[in-house]
Amino acid sequence: MKKKKSFDIIAKGGVTSPKGFKASGICAGIKKSGKDDMALIYSEVPALFSGAFTSCLFEAAPVTLCKERLASDSKFRAVIINSGNANACTGTPGYKNAQKMSEITAAELSVAPENVLVSSTGRIGVQLPMPVIKHGIKLAAAALSEKGGDKAAKAIMTTDTRPKESAVSIKINGKKVTIGGMTKGAGMIAPKLNVPHATMLTYITTDADIGKPLLRALMSEGVNRSFNCVTIDGDTSTNDTVLLIANGSSGVSIKKGTKEAALFAEALYFVMEDLAKQIVYDGEGMTKFVTVTVNNAASAKDAELCARSVASSLLCKTAWFGSDPNWGRVLAAAGYSGATFKPEKFSLDYDEKPVVRNGQDAGTPEKALAKLMKRPEFTVKIDLNAGKHSHTIWTNDISYEYVEINADYHT
Amino acid sequence: MKKKKSFDIIAKGGVTSPKGFKASGICAGIKKSGKDDMALIYSEVPALFSGAFTSCLFEAAPVTLCKERLASDSKFRAVIINSGNANACTGTPGYKNAQKMSEITAAELSVAPENVLVSSTGRIGVQLPMPVIKHGIKLAAAALSEKGGDKAAKAIMTTDTRPKESAVSIKINGKKVTIGGMTKGAGMIAPKLNVPHATMLTYITTDADIGKPLLRALMSEGVNRSFNCVTIDGDTSTNDTVLLIANGSSGVSIKKGTKEAALFAEALYFVMEDLAKQIVYDGEGMTKFVTVTVNNAASAKDAELCARSVASSLLCKTAWFGSDPNWGRVLAAAGYSGATFKPEKFSLDYDEKPVVRNGQDAGTPEKALAKLMKRPEFTVKIDLNAGKHSHTIWTNDISYEYVEINADYHT
Repeated sequence: MKKKKSFDIIAKGGVTSPKGFKASGICAGIKKSGKDDMALIYSEVPALFSGAFTSCLFEAAPVTLCKERLASDSKFRAVIINSGNANACTGTPGYKNAQKMSEITAAELSVAPENVLVSSTGRIGVQLPMPVIKHGIKLAAAALSEKGGDKAAKAIMTTDTRPKESAVSIKINGKKVTIGGMTKGAGMIAPKLNVPHATMLTYITTDADIGKPLLRALMSEGVNRSFNCVTIDGDTSTNDTVLLIANGSSGVSIKKGTKEAALFAEALYFVMEDLAKQIVYDGEGMTKFVTVTVNNAASAKDAELCARSVASSLLCKTAWFGSDPNWGRVLAAAGYSGATFKPEKFSLDYDEKPVVRNGQDAGTPEKALAKLMKRPEFTVKIDLNAGKHSHTIWTNDISYEYVEINADYHT
Repeated sequence: MKKKKSFDIIAKGGVTSPKGFKASGICAGIKKSGKDDMALIYSEVPALFSGAFTSCLFEAAPVTLCKERLASDSKFRAVIINSGNANACTGTPGYKNAQKMSEITAAELSVAPENVLVSSTGRIGVQLPMPVIKHGIKLAAAALSEKGGDKAAKAIMTTDTRPKESAVSIKINGKKVTIGGMTKGAGMIAPKLNVPHATMLTYITTDADIGKPLLRALMSEGVNRSFNCVTIDGDTSTNDTVLLIANGSSGVSIKKGTKEAALFAEALYFVMEDLAKQIVYDGEGMTKFVTVTVNNAASAKDAELCARSVASSLLCKTAWFGSDPNWGRVLAAAGYSGATFKPEKFSLDYDEKPVVRNGQDAGTPEKALAKLMKRPEFTVKIDLNAGKHSHTIWTNDISYEYVEINADYHT
């Protein structure tokens, strides 16, 4: 365990690190590849939860179901997740299939259907193979384990190349409180989560006892500091889901406005940021992790518009792939972003090297910049000199492999 | 000559097809490749002109100069154009260099500097090599010819693979009126022209006699019907310029609101649309021309938002490259576009084949759709069933070659 700020990072931790959670990951046979395609997370006791979901109008059936459960104040006992099929754009039959998934899972776990959430990711527009799903749920329920987090993280992958997990623990009044999470997503990533957005699926568990208003506030702030700061391809999915589940099994209650709540929030935001960054590191075909930071914007909206425009620019992303300092592309993307600033006051740095000062070449030799851009990670730092607002977006480059993956992807 | 509607298309016509215009294209030595990099268009008599320019905040020095000339009601005698260097983000020295370009050209042509416009395209952020430019202007002036349109169209190319020209003629009261144009642009193409947007440079000449208010109205309507309907990579350039120049040499005067004005407008819009489509056909690394049409949107803005979102989606563009029917990506892009509609009323067709009806799979076999998508041109037709507004965007796919060109481009 490595000490980081006021919390401890749990190596190889995940959704089953907090007390009272079990999980599993199995192969139901939805994916043609034969890889694991179904995961289950289970809480031994009824838990409170909060959710953030896609803002895409084509909201997948399982997203609709999760939102209904959240609105009806149902408690959480389990979430059943399949990969290989998104159950999106599947109409009423699709919605009924999502309901059936929750019913079958509920029956296997001897809980009420309204206590079971459902997530799907994969191909859009194809009905779920319900006999395969039903068989898979039985396998997943039978495989539940207190050490099942890793298996679950693998089973929710689609074009991901590796599972993504994070966990930390904090001490509150001498008692240990743990937060664990897993996420998936490597393409169709530009979450704009309506606190209540890729196919990004994220599940965060904690054994703290937290009331719904605080859970909701933590979700809102956490998502804006993490997943909403990520873009891979600018495409927002039909299925994006983040769930935060608190089952109280640690015996530690966390109240709004307390020192403990601040401590918990810091640990939670670390897990969310860690998971969000892991998505970018596993971006389809990526070779570089690029942090785009905009400082001194006239408004928070301007800072975000500018950072998002640069991070989404195909010309910037291909230049980063080619280690091409071509800063004109960054300026062009900032210039058409909609943010208000004076071009003659614009500054740009790549990591520690000045690139543009007052809207013009800062004089750093191009070779030095090209060398810097061969780093696997660098920061594109923009100063608009127009105000006091900042925004950061984590993104990556666009490579030949990105095109290959997305010209051929089917499941 | 092929008859098209009420005008005649002039095969291999361009900016020197209308009477009283000369042009040239020469090698000044700005490009390392040794290809032609300077063009000049000259009108034998003072002409009226209108312009549409980039909306990017980083407006290149020659764009600033053109806007000033337009605002000051200067007449047009010539436009000097260089490729290989955009003279953008070059500060006061850059602006002075643009002025010098107009002065040198004016001296060579024995006209006033305020009658000379300037355009540049190429690398951003590097000062122009003025001795090379000066020598080039002399060569360009000496090479002016009534048949120089083709040479000029070649000299303004950067990553373009071929020159792009169009010309038509109409008959008005027994007299011939001609419209000719040339354009360049293959990347950084998503014009959003503030009538008064890529590096797209377009020059349209006509020998009609047209007053400024009508020229301005024709420009505004024409640009919205043509260049603003094109996106290649979603990146808007610092240098985008469209100039429409009318020198009256045909002896035909065209007045607002007349039958002749309608006839002229139809012919002009044909030339503008033809040039705009040629840009898409020459899009960097493109293998397919895709028309995205949105019908029955609740508002004109919704129609455009939806069409632009689908046309700009990296996931849609890579699926088109792979001939992958993956219509879920089209629905996702429509769903996050910001347009308002009911997903259960959404319909989608690829050319003549139904793909989605009422938000769900229309049942056309995937193989039939994949075969259709191997066509070099197809239409993605969306029906939102939410109103009466339509919008069309012409775009293309994103290939390995696109990434290659843009990871390596340096002039």
